[in-house]
Amino acid sequence: MDLRLKRHSGVPVYLQISSALREQILSGMLREGQSLPPEREMAHRLGVNRSTVVKAYQELKAQGFLHARVGRGTEVKIWESREKEASVREEPLDWRSLFNASSGIPESFFSEMLSRANREGTISFASGFPDPDYFPREIMEDIQKNLHRENARKLYLPSPVEGYAPLRESIAALLGHRGMHVPSRNVMILSGSQQGLDYVARSFLSPGDVVLTEEPTFFGALEIFRAAGARVVGIPMDEEGIRRDLLEGAIRRHNPRFLYLLPTFQNPSGITMSLERRREVLEIAGTSGIPLVEDDPYGELRYEGNRLPSLKALDLRDSVIYLSSFSKVLSLGLRVGWVVAPSLVIERFSRLKQITDLHVNTAVQMLLDAFLRQGHYEEYLSRICRGYREKRDLLEKSLRRHAREIPWSWKTPEGGFYVWCRLPEELSLRSFLSRGALQGVAFFPGGAFYPDEAGREKYIRLNFAHTALDRIEEGVARLARAAGESLKGHAPFLEEHPGGQEPLV
Amino acid sequence: MDLRLKRHSGVPVYLQISSALREQILSGMLREGQSLPPEREMAHRLGVNRSTVVKAYQELKAQGFLHARVGRGTEVKIWESREKEASVREEPLDWRSLFNASSGIPESFFSEMLSRANREGTISFASGFPDPDYFPREIMEDIQKNLHRENARKLYLPSPVEGYAPLRESIAALLGHRGMHVPSRNVMILSGSQQGLDYVARSFLSPGDVVLTEEPTFFGALEIFRAAGARVVGIPMDEEGIRRDLLEGAIRRHNPRFLYLLPTFQNPSGITMSLERRREVLEIAGTSGIPLVEDDPYGELRYEGNRLPSLKALDLRDSVIYLSSFSKVLSLGLRVGWVVAPSLVIERFSRLKQITDLHVNTAVQMLLDAFLRQGHYEEYLSRICRGYREKRDLLEKSLRRHAREIPWSWKTPEGGFYVWCRLPEELSLRSFLSRGALQGVAFFPGGAFYPDEAGREKYIRLNFAHTALDRIEEGVARLARAAGESLKGHAPFLEEHPGGQEPLV
Repeated sequence: MDLRLKRHSGVPVYLQISSALREQILSGMLREGQSLPPEREMAHRLGVNRSTVVKAYQELKAQGFLHARVGRGTEVKIWESREKEASVREEPLDWRSLFNASSGIPESFFSEMLSRANREGTISFASGFPDPDYFPREIMEDIQKNLHRENARKLYLPSPVEGYAPLRESIAALLGHRGMHVPSRNVMILSGSQQGLDYVARSFLSPGDVVLTEEPTFFGALEIFRAAGARVVGIPMDEEGIRRDLLEGAIRRHNPRFLYLLPTFQNPSGITMSLERRREVLEIAGTSGIPLVEDDPYGELRYEGNRLPSLKALDLRDSVIYLSSFSKVLSLGLRVGWVVAPSLVIERFSRLKQITDLHVNTAVQMLLDAFLRQGHYEEYLSRICRGYREKRDLLEKSLRRHAREIPWSWKTPEGGFYVWCRLPEELSLRSFLSRGALQGVAFFPGGAFYPDEAGREKYIRLNFAHTALDRIEEGVARLARAAGESLKGHAPFLEEHPGGQEPLV
Repeated sequence: MDLRLKRHSGVPVYLQISSALREQILSGMLREGQSLPPEREMAHRLGVNRSTVVKAYQELKAQGFLHARVGRGTEVKIWESREKEASVREEPLDWRSLFNASSGIPESFFSEMLSRANREGTISFASGFPDPDYFPREIMEDIQKNLHRENARKLYLPSPVEGYAPLRESIAALLGHRGMHVPSRNVMILSGSQQGLDYVARSFLSPGDVVLTEEPTFFGALEIFRAAGARVVGIPMDEEGIRRDLLEGAIRRHNPRFLYLLPTFQNPSGITMSLERRREVLEIAGTSGIPLVEDDPYGELRYEGNRLPSLKALDLRDSVIYLSSFSKVLSLGLRVGWVVAPSLVIERFSRLKQITDLHVNTAVQMLLDAFLRQGHYEEYLSRICRGYREKRDLLEKSLRRHAREIPWSWKTPEGGFYVWCRLPEELSLRSFLSRGALQGVAFFPGGAFYPDEAGREKYIRLNFAHTALDRIEEGVARLARAAGESLKGHAPFLEEHPGGQEPLV
């Protein structure tokens, strides 16, 4: 124990001792339960009178830092005493009253519902995750090894705010093969495309502004636009995508800041916007001077039909901010996405990146760059598309098998992850969710996907991609049982959710 | 080439051909420069008249998608033609006019200045980075290998919004050893502590609110608070930290939303708040019901003197949000930090994480957890502290050597990365920066650290940690030359900065 006393400092020696000990206790140098030397021994060590040490210990006992136990001497008792002190002497801060009024930050009803999806034995169609067993682990491990061998230093260095330059180039090259010819300086790496939505909101929205979207649309976009204080106005779709006859009027009426669209294998509806509709939407937005935010996390995952050009590829006015991600093709756990945008927007986003989280983890950027450059991507992509197609077909087959008991209906998506399943009007979704939890099956309730949540509880989103192939039929059977029970009017059943939230996408 | 024609669709066949080809060009199936079959051959393949194909090709040429070249037939020419089309026919969107009025997003004068610090041969004291050669690469590589062998599947899965549970526990244990006893549920993993500052701003600030800080203080905090529309009021420090005599009055006058403090090895001043001042500040804030945001990225890096308890460890009212990070101890490139906060705050932050970027990359969380659990941390920490101490001492020695030519002055920091160096009043910082760039030395100008930037251009921040030991003396010699030239009144020298911004910290 290292206590330095200043004989002539004017501070009484017992106070010097007590405050030095308190400091050591609070800083962790003296641990909970540790014994202090008996008073006599301590006095001897410090070269002071025993009564001085007694006084110092007494003060610390009074303050609740020490505790004398018969036969065990004097022990540090900080943890218990701090709790006691806190409850006796101090009024804890009322945090609830301190939060700002950003009512846009949503409560987590859905995350509570969905956390049950992780229960042992539950078959979940609820998440937005890809199949974890499709991830090319061996390839990635080899790449990691090579990177460690050849480039270990760089792996752990900071990288530029806009992203690791070679990865920006690899992504630009990939997009070029899809007909989207952009220089790599207009590609910026993000912590997933959700971060792009946040930056869009922070760059273009002020409270009270309007955003136009398809209806239904990705709830993660709804949440971030609302958190920025914006009002989201949804425009219904037909089989070719957002309805152009309603779009023009909505633009006139609402003067939106931008149009948010998921044109390919839309989340949740699965609808793909036709080429003609793409041109029309670009024309309408162009005439009105409205920017487009194109969200395209699923575009690579086509199981049939011809690939369509993105809005960004068709855009002649530099009016599209294009977002995509490795989350659906590889894994959400990587947290890497990107934005393609005009230079002014990239500049703004890189300022935001600097002040919100600096840059994306360097090692994962190098990993993905090597994966693309070594030419693994296209083969991997066709392999997983074959797998997902098989799952989609099996889900549909299973749904059809139960369609007589449960009159649900859906349209076949040409790609992506989701079957958007319409349920009978009389089915209560809350009851269905609870019954599903009891049966051991989870899904995403449709209401979350509507800008206006009221009165549309007749859809659910089923992700066929994440579920193992051999669990799909059983999962649908459980869905059918849960729906059947709910239709018979069983009461909803709710329970506590365990700690730790699954990310929702 | 796969063109399916519908004979009885009502759409003229030449239009079907041209639109199918356009679609293939735009989607990238037909590549730039690729030749189309001659008209006769195409007509034969499709079973249509040659004149129908001629008409289709003509239309695409008129639209700028195809180009006929003598001797080479008809080629796809999308890229050039799109650029032409864009310049001729379409008005590009005026993005500048579309941004919202969040004047708080700062322009990047400093990043432009600092990007020069990366030039070949420049000795930089400018960044906020640790020494990249201290990073325990071999240990991390071993851990990676083990993780791949034993836990490969999990590495690439999503993790909970609040962070990978074992890492939350490891960090809680580490904090416990520092006298901060918190349950792991009050520890949340973030993409660096900068993200914590963003979440603090998003949770507690509304436009017009006031934040109190030390003066000078970390510019990254200033920027994010300003971006939220807040006004930052700085309170000067003495050698024991923020001045308590000014703090009470400032709280009364400004009614701040919170107090932002960097009590240990402050960035940029290097000052460490005394234990007594810590208690006083907690008392004052407690009496006024003001929360404290404690930023502690450097606290582990002590080179002499006794460790002091954090504000969070001393707090009896649950009134402190504590932020820290692996950025300074290991590497910024990891992008992993954490917050310790009351449960209500963790809840709010996890909602923000869900809507802004979902969670932190799983693999890096598992890596850091293993590093802590396997007990490498403390040994590594003492090793790097010895190294940084040596660097600090050498920087000071070098500065003293030139103190007669350049009357600069500073106080020795007991830890952290920075010497906060006061310059003669008559030295123009802009000129010094430019002269430094020419001499091949970089530093961070002091003005950026003041809530009110005007008229305080007399300090610079020197990071001794990042620079290799054998470059420090030469770096200071260059500094002295640049300062000497500037004092003689050479004109400032500015140039274009290269692409790609270094993250500023």
